[in-house]
Amino acid sequence: MSQLIGNLLVAQSGGPTAVINASLAGVIQEAGRHECIEEIYGGLNGILGILNEEIIDINDEKSRTIEGLKHTPGAALGTCRYKIDFKKKPEQAARDMDRLFEIFAAHNIRYFLYIGGNDSQDTAHKIHEEAVKRGYEMRVNGVPKTIDNDLPHTDHCPGYGSVIKYNATSVMEIAADVTGMATDDGACVLVEVMGRAAGWISGGTVLAKRKPADAPHIILSPEIPFNESAFLARVKEVVSELKCCIVVVGEGLKNDKGVEIAADTAARDSFGHVVLSGAAERLSELVQEKLKIKSRTVKLGYAQRSAAHYASLTDVTEAAACGEAAVRAGAEGKSGFMAKIVRTSDAPYQWTTGLQPLGDIANVEHLVPRDWFSDDGFLPNEKFITYARPLIEGEVKVPTESGLPKFVELARQRVEKKLPPRA
Amino acid sequence: MSQLIGNLLVAQSGGPTAVINASLAGVIQEAGRHECIEEIYGGLNGILGILNEEIIDINDEKSRTIEGLKHTPGAALGTCRYKIDFKKKPEQAARDMDRLFEIFAAHNIRYFLYIGGNDSQDTAHKIHEEAVKRGYEMRVNGVPKTIDNDLPHTDHCPGYGSVIKYNATSVMEIAADVTGMATDDGACVLVEVMGRAAGWISGGTVLAKRKPADAPHIILSPEIPFNESAFLARVKEVVSELKCCIVVVGEGLKNDKGVEIAADTAARDSFGHVVLSGAAERLSELVQEKLKIKSRTVKLGYAQRSAAHYASLTDVTEAAACGEAAVRAGAEGKSGFMAKIVRTSDAPYQWTTGLQPLGDIANVEHLVPRDWFSDDGFLPNEKFITYARPLIEGEVKVPTESGLPKFVELARQRVEKKLPPRA
Repeated sequence: MSQLIGNLLVAQSGGPTAVINASLAGVIQEAGRHECIEEIYGGLNGILGILNEEIIDINDEKSRTIEGLKHTPGAALGTCRYKIDFKKKPEQAARDMDRLFEIFAAHNIRYFLYIGGNDSQDTAHKIHEEAVKRGYEMRVNGVPKTIDNDLPHTDHCPGYGSVIKYNATSVMEIAADVTGMATDDGACVLVEVMGRAAGWISGGTVLAKRKPADAPHIILSPEIPFNESAFLARVKEVVSELKCCIVVVGEGLKNDKGVEIAADTAARDSFGHVVLSGAAERLSELVQEKLKIKSRTVKLGYAQRSAAHYASLTDVTEAAACGEAAVRAGAEGKSGFMAKIVRTSDAPYQWTTGLQPLGDIANVEHLVPRDWFSDDGFLPNEKFITYARPLIEGEVKVPTESGLPKFVELARQRVEKKLPPRA
Repeated sequence: MSQLIGNLLVAQSGGPTAVINASLAGVIQEAGRHECIEEIYGGLNGILGILNEEIIDINDEKSRTIEGLKHTPGAALGTCRYKIDFKKKPEQAARDMDRLFEIFAAHNIRYFLYIGGNDSQDTAHKIHEEAVKRGYEMRVNGVPKTIDNDLPHTDHCPGYGSVIKYNATSVMEIAADVTGMATDDGACVLVEVMGRAAGWISGGTVLAKRKPADAPHIILSPEIPFNESAFLARVKEVVSELKCCIVVVGEGLKNDKGVEIAADTAARDSFGHVVLSGAAERLSELVQEKLKIKSRTVKLGYAQRSAAHYASLTDVTEAAACGEAAVRAGAEGKSGFMAKIVRTSDAPYQWTTGLQPLGDIANVEHLVPRDWFSDDGFLPNEKFITYARPLIEGEVKVPTESGLPKFVELARQRVEKKLPPRA
């Protein structure tokens, strides 16, 4: 094991989750345990901020603040969606890489950690390869993050457990509300959740179903082409039996031509523009129009991925552990890996962290297997439930102030810039 | 004080809240303390179920179940929107009243409690008057309930504190999420909350604002006519200053002609029908179209009024206390009152319960005073904040099972019917 002494730089990227800051806390706390790591720096707004040398000193943050990151939503360092794209913009990408390594050298960055989803792991991979090519001694490792749960090789992604815990809770509560009002006319409530390509998020709400008659009664997954007549028949059946039908729909639900329901060109505003009001709204119109059943929609939107007040303790713990594992990997001399969660047992649920070469991650989409759904495609089955159930266990104790959550903010003490501004 | 011995009947009505069952628990627990009350019955689905003699025996419910009602959303007895309408349907109303009093007599109901909003208090009032007229000795009292906070004479309504606690928390979390992603292009998020006529719910999210730069940046209240150009100018201003703008909009936002923004006829689907996609969606289109600023919507819908997992402890306590007060009133010989919350001090917040004649409640709409908003109408001011702040204090400890809330269900042991079916 080579002892590489220098500074650590950590950054966050992509859409935030309820636990992306827990991973950051894990990185920072673990970094403090290794003597080879001198200063702990944070890059603001991911790669984009680092290119602008926007770096903060995390050494001076209070340990209480770092611990508080574990229940603070959003991305405390800020994120970006910037991509170093050698295919589409080779010259810009080459300039970016030069600039990045100038900055790494100027601040003696020897440990680089990138917390993010698929694109971010790809960026980390490129930086790792570039470091090897340039002979710049640095350990680059990724920390997984995404509510979409679409990263391969890790059992699941930090962020996923919390989003489905919150969504399943919301479905239970909405169902309790609607059931109490149910009249003979019947009612339908459509709850739209995130998920453009994969049905992990919508599918996870199946955990709200403790008894067969419990909501959700129908879950529409983006992987399974929407069948209008089968859907309407099922809604009608549920309403006639239970008086109300709770439908969960992934925002990316598509028809059999692969076109998103929400982007269906049927609805146009007065200018002729397509009205993108969302999948739940489209289905609600359908239910009212075709079945004459009163329907209402809920669109949880960003609320679902930021609901730190009801995050999964398992998720928070695992997110922090992934951050710690990525730092440990670097300290042990490893570079070019993503920390991952390895499940060792379903019941009792047991897990550990592992490492996966970053090269295995990029551009692999991890969808829900078709045989994890019922034959009619309207509900995930026992395989899905066995997988998802442990991920929502445990509640986080979020401190409050005047009845509202008390989140932390980093002091963001800037590290002095050493280079001229980016060209 | 006359000692009237007989049975108690309690029922719930209208849209549920996170704490309507806490009021029910208060009624049941208080009823158990009075020897003049023999059996404790529940009417299913409000007046409508009572007319059908759908009555359950609550005596046999476990005390743990009754206590569990305090953290269970929805209406455990079921509700209805049925109205005994002497103006529009005098003959039906007269038949309904006859039937009701046959049922009261058949089951020796001497204490009747109705938990609900404006219409329900009106119904309770009519039943009280009818009892007096008929010389049927019975004490009829109302328990207030509504997230809309539009009942007069009570300082606020049980249900209101919990909805604004949840909504303000959601706004804080969404803001943390969006702030972390903010780029130079800027972003706008529109959060639609309930409230058709009054801005109590939208206004309550101001509590999320601890610092001037905090969200919400704009709150659009149904009482204040929507001014498109002023709104767009303000969004532009906020985005240029803070990179992101969080707007909370009450679903009933109206233009200067009193027409709901969501019902604006500009958007029509392919059949020529008006597309009612909601106020937030309409504003989002506006922001994207006119300002070219990326915008997203969140529609909390029923999730906000059923969010028992993050209910206000103050609200739960007051809801139960109102139920208790209404039962005590009856036991003390009083009839024709609604229990109300009386605030005796803002800081420290102190309150007690009181009684208001039911005749004072009906058809009085309680809106937010105009001088509780800023001059431009975009934010509630200190008066609103002083009023709302104490109502969200304290968290409820909701037990969980496998990571999700554990709600209770009544066993619903039916009381044997004694009358022929309703004609």
